[in-house]
Amino acid sequence: MPVSAPTRAGIVITGTEVLSGIISDRNGPWLSERLRELGIELTQISVVGDRPGDMEAALRFFADQGVALIVTSGGLGPTADDLTAEVVGAFCGRPMVLDEALEGRIAEILRAITRRWPGLDIDALRRSNRKQAVIPEGATVLEPVGTAPGLVVGMRDPGTGGDAVTPVVVVLPGPPRELQPMWRAASETEAFRAAIVGATEYRQGILRLFGIPESEIAATLRALEQDGLALERLEITTCLRRGEIEIATRYEPDDAETYGAFADAIAERHSNTLFSRDATTIDDQVADLLAGHRVAVGESCTGGLVAARLTERAGSSAYFAGGVVAYSNAAKTEMLGVAPDMIERHGAVSPEVAEALADGAMQHFDADIGVGVTGIAGPGGGDDDKPVGRVCFSVASSDGARITRTVDLPGNRADVRDRSVTVTFHLLRRLLRAELDAPGLRSAADEVSATSE
Amino acid sequence: MPVSAPTRAGIVITGTEVLSGIISDRNGPWLSERLRELGIELTQISVVGDRPGDMEAALRFFADQGVALIVTSGGLGPTADDLTAEVVGAFCGRPMVLDEALEGRIAEILRAITRRWPGLDIDALRRSNRKQAVIPEGATVLEPVGTAPGLVVGMRDPGTGGDAVTPVVVVLPGPPRELQPMWRAASETEAFRAAIVGATEYRQGILRLFGIPESEIAATLRALEQDGLALERLEITTCLRRGEIEIATRYEPDDAETYGAFADAIAERHSNTLFSRDATTIDDQVADLLAGHRVAVGESCTGGLVAARLTERAGSSAYFAGGVVAYSNAAKTEMLGVAPDMIERHGAVSPEVAEALADGAMQHFDADIGVGVTGIAGPGGGDDDKPVGRVCFSVASSDGARITRTVDLPGNRADVRDRSVTVTFHLLRRLLRAELDAPGLRSAADEVSATSE
Repeated sequence: MPVSAPTRAGIVITGTEVLSGIISDRNGPWLSERLRELGIELTQISVVGDRPGDMEAALRFFADQGVALIVTSGGLGPTADDLTAEVVGAFCGRPMVLDEALEGRIAEILRAITRRWPGLDIDALRRSNRKQAVIPEGATVLEPVGTAPGLVVGMRDPGTGGDAVTPVVVVLPGPPRELQPMWRAASETEAFRAAIVGATEYRQGILRLFGIPESEIAATLRALEQDGLALERLEITTCLRRGEIEIATRYEPDDAETYGAFADAIAERHSNTLFSRDATTIDDQVADLLAGHRVAVGESCTGGLVAARLTERAGSSAYFAGGVVAYSNAAKTEMLGVAPDMIERHGAVSPEVAEALADGAMQHFDADIGVGVTGIAGPGGGDDDKPVGRVCFSVASSDGARITRTVDLPGNRADVRDRSVTVTFHLLRRLLRAELDAPGLRSAADEVSATSE
Repeated sequence: MPVSAPTRAGIVITGTEVLSGIISDRNGPWLSERLRELGIELTQISVVGDRPGDMEAALRFFADQGVALIVTSGGLGPTADDLTAEVVGAFCGRPMVLDEALEGRIAEILRAITRRWPGLDIDALRRSNRKQAVIPEGATVLEPVGTAPGLVVGMRDPGTGGDAVTPVVVVLPGPPRELQPMWRAASETEAFRAAIVGATEYRQGILRLFGIPESEIAATLRALEQDGLALERLEITTCLRRGEIEIATRYEPDDAETYGAFADAIAERHSNTLFSRDATTIDDQVADLLAGHRVAVGESCTGGLVAARLTERAGSSAYFAGGVVAYSNAAKTEMLGVAPDMIERHGAVSPEVAEALADGAMQHFDADIGVGVTGIAGPGGGDDDKPVGRVCFSVASSDGARITRTVDLPGNRADVRDRSVTVTFHLLRRLLRAELDAPGLRSAADEVSATSE
C-alpha cells in the first residue's frame, strides 16, 4: 500500500432514473478514471435519486470523510426534479442568484436549437432554461456544452480550523457528451487546481489473461509473496471480465521496479494465457493484427455481434469486408454455400459447419480471413448430446491456416452470445499470430474437443 | 409525494474493479428494481473499493440513515482482497467462525469443478475456498450458486432503545448469475422478512415516447398541474434513454386514479409520440409484431447491431431470417444485389441504397419484411453534403408497404450506431402497424428529408 496520505475525492451520481435502474450510469466509471490519472484516490461513488435530502446526505458523507473534491453528475436539466445546483448551493452556504449574462448565453444556444426544430414551444423552453442560469453566488461557471452550465463551488465559510479540509464541489450535467468536455474545463479552474494541490501521482499497470481460472492467479500471488516479492507495495486488483482476467495494479512511481518484477513473474508463470501486459485490449490487438487483411464473418448464434464488435472502432472498414448472419440452415446454404448434406450429417452446430461458414464468408466477401461461429445460445434448442452453451468456432486464413474449437460456455443467452464473441477474438488473435496450437480456452469454457486441420 | 414513512434500504457495491471503472456494475440496478417491487425505498447505491475502511464507512452511513436493510454485492471470492464477510461481521459485532458443514458443501462443489478442469492446482483451490466458509457467528447462510455462500446478518446487539432501527445486512456475491438466485433465497429468510415488515406497497407506471424533446414533457407537466391534476401525489421521473423518453411514475395504490388521469393526459397530448403505456419496450413490441413474419436485414454503418438486437431474445429464430453486414460497396452488390450504378449515382449513403438493401435482404433471405440501413457513423467519412451522423433507413414489406427516412443523428460513432438501431426498431413498429405516415423522429435526430413510396 502507498504510504503517503492520498488526496481523496467522492463522486455523487444523481438521478432517480439511475438509482432505480432504468438507465445505467456511464459517468461514475469515466470520472473515476480521470481522478486516477490526477493521482486522486476515489473513496466512493454514491448514486442518489432526485430527493434533495438524500443528495445532501451524500455530500455531507464525503465532507465528513475529509475529501478534497466532490464531483456530481446530473440534475442540471430544465425540469423541476433537477435540483443539484440548488442543493450544492445550500450545502456550500451560498444563496442562489440569477446570472444574467449566463442567461443570455443560454438563450443564444436555444435560438440555434429552435431554428432546427420548427413548431417547438419556445416560451416553455426559455422559461425552463432560465432556471439553468440560477447558480450559487460566487461559483465558477463552466460554459454549457448542451444548454446546462456546470459549476465549481467552494464552501462560503471554509471552517474555523486552518487545517480543516473543506471540499470543492464540481457540478456537471448528466449526458456524457456534455460532462466529458466540461470536466476538462473544470479541471483547469483555479478552485479545482487549489483543491488537489499535493495529490500523489500514481501509476497503473494492467495485465490481461485469457484461459485461466481466477484461483490460479490467487495461488500465484501467494507464491510470489512467499518468494519475497514486496507485493504489499502494490495495490493489486484481479477481476474476471467477459471471460478474461484483468490484473490492475496501482503503485507509486518509486515502486515501478517492484511492479516490473511482478509483471515479469506473471508473464513467466502464465506465458500461455497472458495476452497483454501493456494494457492493450484484445480488441486493440485484433485491430492491429488485421491491418493489411480483410476479414469476413459467417455467424449464427452470435446474431451479428461478431461483426458489430469488429466494426466498433473507427477505421475498421479498412479490414472488415462483411458478414452474414445465417440463422437458418437455408441462409447458411443460400448465402454462404454451406452444403445441405453437411448440415444434415453433422448438425448445424458442428465444427464442420463452423469451418464451412468461415470458408464461405471468406469466399463470398473476397476476404483472406474467415470467421465461422455456430452454436446454441439457448434457452431452448439444447439436448443431452449438444447442450445449451455449445458453440463451435472456426477461424481460417486463405493461406490454409485454421483453428477450430468447440466449447461449452456457461450462463444465459446473453452470456453465451457475449462470451462467444470474446472467444472468437482470441482465436483470431492466435490465427493472426500464427499460434495455431496454443492451449487455453479454459476460463471461457469447458473445452469439448479441439481439432486443428 | 407519498405521505407514509417508507421502509428504506441501501445498496453497497464492493470492488475496486467497479469503483475504478474497469467493470461496470450490473447488480445495483437489478437490486434496485427488486427493492422497488417489495415497496422498499432505496436511498442510495454506494460503490466502494476493496478497502475495509471505506466499506465500513458505507455501512455506517446507511445505519445512520436508519435504513432497515443493507444489501451488499461482491467481495466474497477466494482472493485476499475479498473482505466483505469480515467487514460485515465486524460491523454487526459478530466474531468470524468456520462453518465446517458449509466448508464440506463448498468442497463438494469444488470436486465437481475440478473434475472438469484437469491440471488445476486443487490444494490451492481448497485453501482459498476454505476462506469462504468463515462467516459471522449466527449469520443465516445462503447456499452457494457458484462457490461463494451468501449471508443474512443481523446486529448482534440491536441497540438500546426499543424503537431504534438497526439494519439487517444481506451479503451477496458479485457475479449476477450467482447474486440473482441468491437474492431470492435471501428474501425468503426470516431475518429478511422481519426487517421489511410494514413496507408500503408502491406501484410503478411507465410511459415511453419517441420523437419528442424532453422540454415538451416538462411543459406538459406544468400545464397539467395548472389544470389541477394532483401531480404532487405522484413521484414522476423523466429521462432520455437511447433516443426515447421514459416517464416513470411511482405512486401508492390509493393514487391509482390520479396516475390513470395523468397517463390519459399524456396519451391525449402526445398521441403521435407515445408508443407504450404498459411498460413494454420497443423491443417487446417489435418482437410481438413480427410474429408470423420473417425479417431480413441489410445493414452497413450499424455493422451487425440491427441483426444482433433482433436476435437478442429467445425465440427470435421464429421471425429472424438473416442479415448481411454489407460494409463495402462490393458486398452490397455481391451479397444483396444493389446495382453498382445506383451506388455510383446516389452514393452508398442514400435513401435509394437503403431501399435496395431492404429489398435485397428480403429477396435473398426469402423474407416478407426487409430492413436497410446505410449511413456515416464517423468519425471520418463525412463531408458538407453528407455529414457524420447522416443515416438512411428503409423498412419494407413484401406487400409493397415501405417507410424510408433520412436523419442526422448526434453523438460519436457508438452513439450514431446505437441510435440508428433504435430508429430502425421504431420504423419497423410503424411498418408492422401500418402507420406509414406517422411523424416524429425528432428526438432521435434532425430529420433531413422524408420520402415515402
